[in-house]
Amino acid sequence: MALIVQKFGGTSVGDADRIRAVADHVARTKAAGNDVVVVVSAMGKFTDDLIRLADDVSPTRPPRELDMLLTAGERISMALVSMALGACGVEAASFTGSQAGIITDTDHTRAKILEIRPDRIREAVDAGLVPVVAGFQGVSTERDITTLGRGGSDVTAVALAAALKADVCEIYTDVTGVFSADPRVVVNARRIPKVSFDEMMEISATGGRVLMLRSVEFARRHGVPLHVRSSFTWEPGTWIVEEDPTMEEAVVSAVTDDTSEAKITVGGVPDRPGVAAHLFRQLADRGINIDMIVQNISAKGITDISFTVAKTDLVAASETCDKVKDEIGATEVTSDDNIGRVSIIGAGMKSNPGVTALMFETLSENGINIEMISTSSIRISCVMRAEKVADAVRYLHTAFGLDAA
Amino acid sequence: MALIVQKFGGTSVGDADRIRAVADHVARTKAAGNDVVVVVSAMGKFTDDLIRLADDVSPTRPPRELDMLLTAGERISMALVSMALGACGVEAASFTGSQAGIITDTDHTRAKILEIRPDRIREAVDAGLVPVVAGFQGVSTERDITTLGRGGSDVTAVALAAALKADVCEIYTDVTGVFSADPRVVVNARRIPKVSFDEMMEISATGGRVLMLRSVEFARRHGVPLHVRSSFTWEPGTWIVEEDPTMEEAVVSAVTDDTSEAKITVGGVPDRPGVAAHLFRQLADRGINIDMIVQNISAKGITDISFTVAKTDLVAASETCDKVKDEIGATEVTSDDNIGRVSIIGAGMKSNPGVTALMFETLSENGINIEMISTSSIRISCVMRAEKVADAVRYLHTAFGLDAA
Repeated sequence: MALIVQKFGGTSVGDADRIRAVADHVARTKAAGNDVVVVVSAMGKFTDDLIRLADDVSPTRPPRELDMLLTAGERISMALVSMALGACGVEAASFTGSQAGIITDTDHTRAKILEIRPDRIREAVDAGLVPVVAGFQGVSTERDITTLGRGGSDVTAVALAAALKADVCEIYTDVTGVFSADPRVVVNARRIPKVSFDEMMEISATGGRVLMLRSVEFARRHGVPLHVRSSFTWEPGTWIVEEDPTMEEAVVSAVTDDTSEAKITVGGVPDRPGVAAHLFRQLADRGINIDMIVQNISAKGITDISFTVAKTDLVAASETCDKVKDEIGATEVTSDDNIGRVSIIGAGMKSNPGVTALMFETLSENGINIEMISTSSIRISCVMRAEKVADAVRYLHTAFGLDAA
Repeated sequence: MALIVQKFGGTSVGDADRIRAVADHVARTKAAGNDVVVVVSAMGKFTDDLIRLADDVSPTRPPRELDMLLTAGERISMALVSMALGACGVEAASFTGSQAGIITDTDHTRAKILEIRPDRIREAVDAGLVPVVAGFQGVSTERDITTLGRGGSDVTAVALAAALKADVCEIYTDVTGVFSADPRVVVNARRIPKVSFDEMMEISATGGRVLMLRSVEFARRHGVPLHVRSSFTWEPGTWIVEEDPTMEEAVVSAVTDDTSEAKITVGGVPDRPGVAAHLFRQLADRGINIDMIVQNISAKGITDISFTVAKTDLVAASETCDKVKDEIGATEVTSDDNIGRVSIIGAGMKSNPGVTALMFETLSENGINIEMISTSSIRISCVMRAEKVADAVRYLHTAFGLDAA
């Protein structure tokens, strides 16, 4: 008998029909002899509706009140799922984040979990009930209601699975798993049956939309096996697990793409210690997250520093660089929001030196110019013109033998 | 400087415009030097929408989950009102029933308040904030979310006003106060500027729709002055206060009507002790509330017992009477759901013996037959054919000099 945490996203509980389908599935899992803990998101676009209402009543969004508002969404879906389970003959009880013991810091709208005190959930499971827990929400050390930010319901599910020592955390969504490339870009992309935490973190970090990096990191840290699967077809999806040393590693598992970033180049920078540190400290102090950083080889003691930021941070980042320019003796700041990044990810890359060469050749043969390169031991990312991204993904998917037969 | 509890019902917070209007009004009250505690209901018909969703996912409505579901409604409106107050420059913070210390019993969907621990509300007021509290909800001694049943938001407001020793509890609604008759029935009904708790309880009990009996009882018990007024015109409404012995009492303050009940007659009942007790014990055990009871004068040791129940309880009540009939030696059970009740209410009635006569004369002169009569020291109620009710209200309103000039 296993303990399974099943998390259902917004589309999975989007209307009464979907909620009844979810309840049926939970009932089947329970009938198969498992203990089940359910975590739910708000229904479909309900959160968006609430944000629109908030914008209608106030030009600002006070974070404490925004959290109070948005947490109504999971409250509705969890009560409905519990009722639907009751209708399937499964005794269920819903729990808010607070009741489930999700204790967070006081950073409203993007709180971090400090501690899980799952006593009530554990008691409910022991009593044979299916607890249905509100995702995305917790209660702060100041007894205020908090939300966990984007991807927060997945974090709730993984954190509860870790605290309860669950055998698996199943993340149900509207796709059948993690794919070798975005199926909207590559028609014959394949579902990946099994992927390591390390690979999944690279996939999430470079444009894979199925799981947020944060929940994969959390799962890896606590050794919680994840199973990403569809709440529409219920077929087995993608397992995300510890790397298994006995299994043969795919050279390349996935090709990802991301056109949500822009590039800033600070040119004519004196190549001396502390310059980059000063620049990135200023950016960090404004809360701007930097993704790739590339510094060209210094010529005559002068270098260029290029980096990527989310397009939404481009204005703030450019302003900051303009201010810092004179302090660090740079000559110019340019920005470019027409870029895209394509990455290949594979744990087998480490032992296959030809991978980089094949990637560059493939792009080059198809007339795609590489503007920035960054690598990790299991990933290679290339920045290019945004309009080349879809083609690049398709060529690489074929070149690395990922196309479905 | 006064402490004012302001409660806003569903229509008062029905959309973003109404919510901004409410915030403006609270801000004005605060700017006038008062401390304000706000209590809100769910927006407009939102609760009905949630109940429809519940019916869609489950044929039953598990009470614990129904409470969890419905309490989402106030959560949304209180967060939005707090945001709107912020936009008016008033610092506000929302509190759930649980956070506001509304401790109830475990009787889901109609919980009773056991205790109020308003520490957080008091602290917020002392810190200069406007607390915005969810009406209708509390937390049970088992740490589950409960709702207080019909009229529950008014109860929350009155209970908080009592616990905080507020100077007044203002109940904002979509009418301008308590009227001398239902303005939909009597075109020239008048707003009553001031009414005693006793009169208001009779008005609520006999068909007045503005306040539920329960909150008036609570306010009287704790001596909380109520002020029922409009959130659309903001004009002064009706004050409900302790009877003031120095003020001259209106002979008749209001004429009310109620067509929500049906009548059951148990005929041919032996007139001996214990018969009525047995009948009404059986009805009580099925949870059926009895309103009027009339027993005719016994003729030859045989009598008829007639009583009224809510139409929604008619089937259950008739079944119960049929079962009891033989046990008590009655000959027949008949029911009639085409009745209505018209009542006149006035504290001055006690010292004006002609009131009863004038009521009966007025009805008789207009061809309206009285089927049952019941009285209290400040009320006379007559049951009649349902289709005569509107006319009866109009004739009595005129006869007792209540028509607006």
